[in-house]
Amino acid sequence: MSQKEKGYIQVYTGNGKGKTTAALGLALRALGYGYRTYIGQFLKGQFYGELEAIKRLSPYIVIEQFGRKGFIHVTENPDEEDIRRAREGLEKCRKAMLSNKYKIIILDEINVAIYFNLLTEKEVLDFINQKPEEVELVLTGRYAPESIIERADLVTEMKEIKHYYQKGVKARKGFEK
Amino acid sequence: MSQKEKGYIQVYTGNGKGKTTAALGLALRALGYGYRTYIGQFLKGQFYGELEAIKRLSPYIVIEQFGRKGFIHVTENPDEEDIRRAREGLEKCRKAMLSNKYKIIILDEINVAIYFNLLTEKEVLDFINQKPEEVELVLTGRYAPESIIERADLVTEMKEIKHYYQKGVKARKGFEK
Repeated sequence: MSQKEKGYIQVYTGNGKGKTTAALGLALRALGYGYRTYIGQFLKGQFYGELEAIKRLSPYIVIEQFGRKGFIHVTENPDEEDIRRAREGLEKCRKAMLSNKYKIIILDEINVAIYFNLLTEKEVLDFINQKPEEVELVLTGRYAPESIIERADLVTEMKEIKHYYQKGVKARKGFEK
Repeated sequence: MSQKEKGYIQVYTGNGKGKTTAALGLALRALGYGYRTYIGQFLKGQFYGELEAIKRLSPYIVIEQFGRKGFIHVTENPDEEDIRRAREGLEKCRKAMLSNKYKIIILDEINVAIYFNLLTEKEVLDFINQKPEEVELVLTGRYAPESIIERADLVTEMKEIKHYYQKGVKARKGFEK
């Protein structure tokens, strides 16, 4: 498969575990074939396991986080700072997508950014429409809107069947964050 | 979180994309916290993207493949060679799990190995029962049997909503393999 082969649009959504990790794993597997991946993480701005690990995989995998420090407690009425960060993040992703440097572009948690009104569906659909033929574009996050599912080639819903949070276990370093 | 904190049993199953990649991404994220992962891949014996990438992450992530070269076309009546490989694979995973060297043990595609009668549910449940308290155990593959779902702490079903295979696209290097 050459760098120039067609790239698709993938969506990982749903309330289950494994959306971001599936995207990370995809980047890792693609690296084995020499493909480069750019990961833009919306909403995340804390220290995450993925940041440290991915430094070792540079320059094959590059990651940037656009959120404020810590998990943002976003509501349907985000403030201007949140919106500004999400928009600037999307511009960085666009630059990466059009740079011809990356085979894969991952917009991590972007569906949630839309859900919380940090970005509009139209802004993201416009972004998708600019995808160069050969680039693989991956959008993650629960609440993927119908318009994006419609536009995607491959959609997987991660569905929670059973979760230890139900037993009162909190998010664990190295596993959920 | 210390190396000694409780580890859980996770299952990634269903007909959708992202089961193996979610497990790979989990190993990658955990690496950021210094955790070591052992990945045993049942049924796989071909060159996979993950093999090449993971060499760079040694000794944090170690991977072994137990299948024959190429995707095995397994049927409900596998031959002795397939069964022998799966059993030996499970023994290697057990040794890794009990070695005190790894925080995470991933049994990739083991649900499928059960489905195709390469391993019995009992063999795998016995394995699960030997899990040291602090080890995180991850089982992937569609067709997870009810007994394993019952035993797990966290179960995610990857559900195919839309797939480009429906459009006639074949498995692509760096993406599906």
